Amino acid sequence: MTISGKALSALKKIVGQHNFTKEIEECACYSYDATAQHFLPDAVVFPQNSDEISKILSLASKNSFYVIPRGSGSGMTGGSLPVKGGVVVVLTRMNRILEIDCDNLIAVAEPGVITSHFHKAVESKGLFYPPDPSSSDFSTLGGNLAECAGGPRAVKYGVTRDYVLGLQAVLPNGDIIKTGVKTAKGVVGYDLTRLLVGSEGTLGVITQMTLRLLPRPEFVRTMTAVFESMDIGAETVSEIMRQKIIPRTVEFMDNASINCTEDYLHMGLPRDAGAMLLLEVDGNKDQVNSDIELLKNLCLLKGAKNITIAQSDLERADLWKARKAISPALFRLAPDKINEDIVVPKSKIPHMVRKIKEISDETGLLLASFGHAGDGNIHVNIMLDKKDSEQVRKAEIALELLFDYTLDLGGTISGEHGIGITKAPFITKEIGQAELTLMKNIKTAFDPKGILNPGKMFTSLTD
Amino acid sequence: MTISGKALSALKKIVGQHNFTKEIEECACYSYDATAQHFLPDAVVFPQNSDEISKILSLASKNSFYVIPRGSGSGMTGGSLPVKGGVVVVLTRMNRILEIDCDNLIAVAEPGVITSHFHKAVESKGLFYPPDPSSSDFSTLGGNLAECAGGPRAVKYGVTRDYVLGLQAVLPNGDIIKTGVKTAKGVVGYDLTRLLVGSEGTLGVITQMTLRLLPRPEFVRTMTAVFESMDIGAETVSEIMRQKIIPRTVEFMDNASINCTEDYLHMGLPRDAGAMLLLEVDGNKDQVNSDIELLKNLCLLKGAKNITIAQSDLERADLWKARKAISPALFRLAPDKINEDIVVPKSKIPHMVRKIKEISDETGLLLASFGHAGDGNIHVNIMLDKKDSEQVRKAEIALELLFDYTLDLGGTISGEHGIGITKAPFITKEIGQAELTLMKNIKTAFDPKGILNPGKMFTSLTD
Repeated sequence: MTISGKALSALKKIVGQHNFTKEIEECACYSYDATAQHFLPDAVVFPQNSDEISKILSLASKNSFYVIPRGSGSGMTGGSLPVKGGVVVVLTRMNRILEIDCDNLIAVAEPGVITSHFHKAVESKGLFYPPDPSSSDFSTLGGNLAECAGGPRAVKYGVTRDYVLGLQAVLPNGDIIKTGVKTAKGVVGYDLTRLLVGSEGTLGVITQMTLRLLPRPEFVRTMTAVFESMDIGAETVSEIMRQKIIPRTVEFMDNASINCTEDYLHMGLPRDAGAMLLLEVDGNKDQVNSDIELLKNLCLLKGAKNITIAQSDLERADLWKARKAISPALFRLAPDKINEDIVVPKSKIPHMVRKIKEISDETGLLLASFGHAGDGNIHVNIMLDKKDSEQVRKAEIALELLFDYTLDLGGTISGEHGIGITKAPFITKEIGQAELTLMKNIKTAFDPKGILNPGKMFTSLTD
Repeated sequence: MTISGKALSALKKIVGQHNFTKEIEECACYSYDATAQHFLPDAVVFPQNSDEISKILSLASKNSFYVIPRGSGSGMTGGSLPVKGGVVVVLTRMNRILEIDCDNLIAVAEPGVITSHFHKAVESKGLFYPPDPSSSDFSTLGGNLAECAGGPRAVKYGVTRDYVLGLQAVLPNGDIIKTGVKTAKGVVGYDLTRLLVGSEGTLGVITQMTLRLLPRPEFVRTMTAVFESMDIGAETVSEIMRQKIIPRTVEFMDNASINCTEDYLHMGLPRDAGAMLLLEVDGNKDQVNSDIELLKNLCLLKGAKNITIAQSDLERADLWKARKAISPALFRLAPDKINEDIVVPKSKIPHMVRKIKEISDETGLLLASFGHAGDGNIHVNIMLDKKDSEQVRKAEIALELLFDYTLDLGGTISGEHGIGITKAPFITKEIGQAELTLMKNIKTAFDPKGILNPGKMFTSLTD
């Protein structure tokens, strides 16, 4: 689908000259995301409000061109890439927090708000927005909703979906809709809110969101514990849950991640450890202190070799430093990586960890794992050099083995990154034919002309 | 749509003679629900498994007859009534709890499991399933999911939707689908799980559910506090939230509810009180004891006249006795009642309470209110004699005024009962034309022939 000069002029008129570009150098800035794949759009617009977005989609509908919504472009699966060209609608200029209602514990925000800005704004009022994807310093709330982002705190607090009460969104035909409610309860009509959340920008463009907040926990305490093997680490996590303690984060790093991070940071991480756990609890002071003591004793009982409990915010930040550095550190091992985010039932983590080792042995590729042990969400990084075709072939085999075993264990191939384009070839492993047909019919119900964010998720199967 | 003798024979063959009836006396038992409206089905079947349901829907699809799924028939809005005849599919014989997984905190159950049986089963393993609709002693999990049931504990723990991880369901064409995951995270494809939850049996028949569980809270404490006016009671609730205490229940009764319950139970309730709050906290022992002390002081500070803190499980049950008796007690005031479940942002409860008084004055009808003050969910009971046409006319006016003001305050016309048939005439007050069109298109995507649970929600608008 090409865009006529007339349509481009109309677009420029809708958003204004300063919010429109078709210069190739500028378009290039909106051609990629965190997958490092590139697709050049025909034009880029920066709308200021939902009316402009309505006009843009109306125009696209009439003139049959593609529209691709985009936040900060920090997505891990290509959800915001203009794979078939078209107009990228960048939402970063719609970045106002419209309301923080301390009495009713809700906030209303535009999609372009940076997640960590939102965290700070609500925390300054004594409130708390739990979803915390690792990208929160640069990702937008709109992107978080489109992908249903998770993060470390999901183990206690759930994911983005659990904090969205209502939306304003623009449909592909230009209609501006309102979904959901401003209250915790609300059951009038179908749940369009949660249908839009996680739909990766394929059903509508989210232009405003009503989010549920919690009171900010009074205290947080953080500890790390080092284990001889990942098996013991995983067994410790299971035991923690059995003891009815739900930490707000249960992060882990495997031996490869530990070593690689140590090479990068030289902070004295235990190179021979099989696993390191990072545990964090929150609540009131007494509760937190008693929980951290319980966690410490439990880890010791399970054979933890080294336990560090942060005594200040500075020490807390230090403990997080290694965990946060893994992703960039891994590039020291190989020029490229495939970063997956499989989830398995948490009791199956040891099985998965053994399988990852097997896959590494079988393919000769290095696989480093870290992530959210508390909810079974493992970031498996397959390290490779994409210029080496043999390594690429082996990585493909590794991926197949990884996904198949994940599903065998009752898991899912994506916990928080979405499908986009990178996982689209694997979606039929998890989603059956009847379910796919249903999803396609839903897509058609929202977007009969197929103009919104084409080639993503299952839509690539028919396009 | 009439059902041929041949189709009825085929139905009988699918479920077996003992699980089929078209006797009018037996059909009458499945013609009503808690709305006290009656619609006779053509036949009733009691399938044992999803394969039988698949065959039933396949047959219905080919032979164009209506299928109406039903649990215990405790619904408040007519969701399970065969308003156009057809075959009622009673799911109460699919009542097995298939799995309670203590390591991964999930359970798998069939739709016919009685909610309170499920509570007991998971609690006996030290786990906890928070959703607790007042009907839990007789409602089924399937019905709870279909309506997205709430309950008193929603203020802290959320509603049914928040505990459903995945489903097995049968589509109107007979396809058996699997949605969602067994893990806390999972973002592969559109969120069919939450689209089915709350869809009132209009999109598919839920045949199996994977539910999220929590560790059972160690301690629960319960107190009641009596206030001079509902305004002060509501202001106290706001202050509790501001103090960052989230009780697991914040129930209230207004003066009319208190008096009526006292007439019924003679337990010494304060007849001149404007409002009574029932507060419950849970957690570990220290936390619970400190929270209840805080709540007590806060209530006293706000002018509570009488505070009772239960010192035993028996005393806890006593405190709940009045709250649980309201609904039956109200029938002492008038032979009929219209029981609504509006929700307003909790800070607007005082406004709503004043409005309810105004509506009562204006129409001359008695309106009694009680419900879930913690989440703004108010059960407004319009008392009347349905044989008195003047009272019926006034009740209609009262309902319009009630719903309009609810929406003016940013609320919703249903927090947990659903739309069914009783609220269908009002759905367009809350849902706009574009959103309704979308919902109808989704209905068509699932049920192109319109055979599943016809005449409910918005579908009545076109049927």
